[in-house]
Amino acid sequence: MPTVAALPQFFDLALPDLALVRGGVVRSHRSRGWWWSREGDTPAAPQPGVPTVLLVHALTGSAQAGGKDGWWEPLIGPGQALDPAHYRILCFNNLGSCYGSSGPGTEGFPPMKTVDLTSIDIARALLLGLDKLGIGRVHLTTGGSLGGMITLTLAALAPERFERILPFATSVSASAWVVGWNHVARQILRLDPGYPDNVGRGLEIARQLAILTYRAEPRPAPGTDAGYPVQSYLEHQGKKLRNRFAAQAYELQLAAMDHHDLLQPLPGDTPPAISRVRASVLVVDVDTDQLFTPAQAQTLTAALRQAGATVERTTVTSIHGHDAFLIEWPTLGPLLTKALHLHAPKP
Amino acid sequence: MPTVAALPQFFDLALPDLALVRGGVVRSHRSRGWWWSREGDTPAAPQPGVPTVLLVHALTGSAQAGGKDGWWEPLIGPGQALDPAHYRILCFNNLGSCYGSSGPGTEGFPPMKTVDLTSIDIARALLLGLDKLGIGRVHLTTGGSLGGMITLTLAALAPERFERILPFATSVSASAWVVGWNHVARQILRLDPGYPDNVGRGLEIARQLAILTYRAEPRPAPGTDAGYPVQSYLEHQGKKLRNRFAAQAYELQLAAMDHHDLLQPLPGDTPPAISRVRASVLVVDVDTDQLFTPAQAQTLTAALRQAGATVERTTVTSIHGHDAFLIEWPTLGPLLTKALHLHAPKP
Repeated sequence: MPTVAALPQFFDLALPDLALVRGGVVRSHRSRGWWWSREGDTPAAPQPGVPTVLLVHALTGSAQAGGKDGWWEPLIGPGQALDPAHYRILCFNNLGSCYGSSGPGTEGFPPMKTVDLTSIDIARALLLGLDKLGIGRVHLTTGGSLGGMITLTLAALAPERFERILPFATSVSASAWVVGWNHVARQILRLDPGYPDNVGRGLEIARQLAILTYRAEPRPAPGTDAGYPVQSYLEHQGKKLRNRFAAQAYELQLAAMDHHDLLQPLPGDTPPAISRVRASVLVVDVDTDQLFTPAQAQTLTAALRQAGATVERTTVTSIHGHDAFLIEWPTLGPLLTKALHLHAPKP
Repeated sequence: MPTVAALPQFFDLALPDLALVRGGVVRSHRSRGWWWSREGDTPAAPQPGVPTVLLVHALTGSAQAGGKDGWWEPLIGPGQALDPAHYRILCFNNLGSCYGSSGPGTEGFPPMKTVDLTSIDIARALLLGLDKLGIGRVHLTTGGSLGGMITLTLAALAPERFERILPFATSVSASAWVVGWNHVARQILRLDPGYPDNVGRGLEIARQLAILTYRAEPRPAPGTDAGYPVQSYLEHQGKKLRNRFAAQAYELQLAAMDHHDLLQPLPGDTPPAISRVRASVLVVDVDTDQLFTPAQAQTLTAALRQAGATVERTTVTSIHGHDAFLIEWPTLGPLLTKALHLHAPKP
C-alpha cells in the first residue's frame, strides 16, 4: 500500500531543564518544531519504522524548513529529494533563537548578561527534543553553516543515534575569519544606541556585513555601473532581517558559531569531539565560499576520516558563495538523495 | 660623478582653488608632500633632468612613503628599488585626508554636509602639486588600492605626463563588493552616537571590518585554537586607526573609492576615461586578494590594452591578500625595478 504524505505542521515541546556549557540553566525549556511526514505519523504519536530526516537551520533560520517560505522549500515535498511520503522530515528552532524555542526573553531563559551559547548547547536541546518524541536513531541529519556545525556536534554527542550526516558549507571549528566577522557584527550591535534592549539599525548593519560574506564577488561586468545597486540591496536585506529577528538572539547564535570547536574534547571527555563521530558522512562545500572555504572542508574531511568515519566529499560549483546551500536547488536535490542512500555505518 | 642621496623631507604647497567634480570648491588649497632625492634637488628648487617617481597612498596613508615608519619604507632608500640617488621619490597626502593636505575641517575646505569626493578630485590635486613644483613628465607613478585607482586616474587625466604606471591591487572601476563594504563601513560610522563630529568607536569598528577584507583567510591549522586571537588583533587595529585618523576623512576617502569609474568618460569628455591612458603599464594583482580580485585585474588589463597602451601584468603569489602591497617586500622591489625600466610610450 503506497504511503501518502500528510500536511506539514508545527508543534511545541516542553523539555527538561538544560544546563548550558558556559554556565546557566534553561528552565521552562521549550522547543518549537516543524514536521512533515506520512499520514498517521504525527509528533503526538510518531510511528515506529518511519525513517527520520533531521534538518538544522542556520544563523537566522527557523524550524520551518519546508512548505511555503520554508528555507529549503524546493527540496521538501512529494516527489522532491526529501519526500514526506518516505521520510519523516523534522526541524527544530535552535535554542537561543527567536522563533518559538527558548531564547532571550522567554520565561526561564537566563538573563542576557549572564548567558553565552555554544553549538553543544543547541545540539543538546535538539537531542532532548528527539528524546521527547521518542525518536532514537536518525536516518539523515543535515544543515548548512551554523546548521552544519550543529549537525557535526550532534554526531559527536550521540554517535550511536546519527546514521548519516551531510554537513554543508561548514567546518570542524570556527575559523579565525568567522570569529573575526562575528566579532565585528557583535561590535556593531553594541554600538547601537538602543543596545541591548532596543537594537534596530545596528542589526540592519550587522546583517549587511553578513550578506557580503555570504555571497561571492561577482565577476566585473565592464561597461555597466555595477556598484550602486549593492547599496540598496544591502539596505533591503538589513531591513528585512530587522523586521523578523531579534538582536539578542542574533548575538547568541553568533556566539554558538564562535565557540564551535570539535577539535577540542566534549565537556568531561578526553579525545577531540570530532573523533567520536561514527556516522557515514557526505561533506559538501562550495568552491566560491569565502566564509567556509574548501580548505576548511578538507580539514573537516581529514578529521572525520582520521576518526574512522566513512566520508565522501563534494565541492559544489556555484557563483553564489556560501549561500549556495540556500540557492542551488538543482544541485542540492541530488546531493540529498545521495546522502539518504549512504551505507549506514556498522553498529 | 656619482650622485648622493640627500635626507628625505616634508614640504607644504599652496595650490590654486580646486572645483570638485560633485560640487563645491576647495579654497585655501594646500598639499603636504614628502620628498627624497639627490643632493641639491629640493622641492624649493627641483633640478631639471631628475626623473620623478610619484607614489600615491591608499585609504588611510600619508605622504610619508619612505624613511622611518613610511608605508613603503623597505623599498625606498639608497640601494633599494626606489633609490633617491637615482630618482626623485615624491608623495603627497591625498586631498580630503587628514595628514596635512586640505581636508575636513581645514580652512577653505567645503563643509562635510555639502562635500563628496572622487578619485578624479584627488588626482587633480596631485596634478596641481606637480604643476606647482614645475614637474612636467613623471617617470613612474604607482600606488595600491585607492592609490592605484588614483594612479590610473592621473594617467587618464594627463596622458602626456605619465610615462609609466604600476597600478597595484586595484581596478578600473569600483566593484560591487568594494562599494558594498564601503557602504557598511559608512553606516557603522553613522551609527556612532558621536557622528558626525565626534566619532570614536565607530571608526574602530569600520577599521576592523576593513582589516578583514585586506587580509586573506589563513589556512586552518588543525588542533590550534586559531579563533580568538583575531578578536584582540582586530581591536588593536581598530584602536590604532582611531588614534591616528579622522572619521570624516575616512568617509571622504571611501567616497573617492566608490565613485572611481574609468569606464565612464571624464567630465565633459566622451570616450571612457581609461581609453585616454598612454603610459606603459605594469598591472600587478595578488592571487589571494578578496577585495581587488585577479578577475578585476584582468578587466583592467583588457581595458588598457583596448586603449592601445602597452600593458604587462603580474599576479603576485601571497598568503596576505590585498595587503600584500604593503607586506611582500622581496616581491615588491623587483616589480618596481621592472616598472622603472618599462619602455617609455611613443610620444
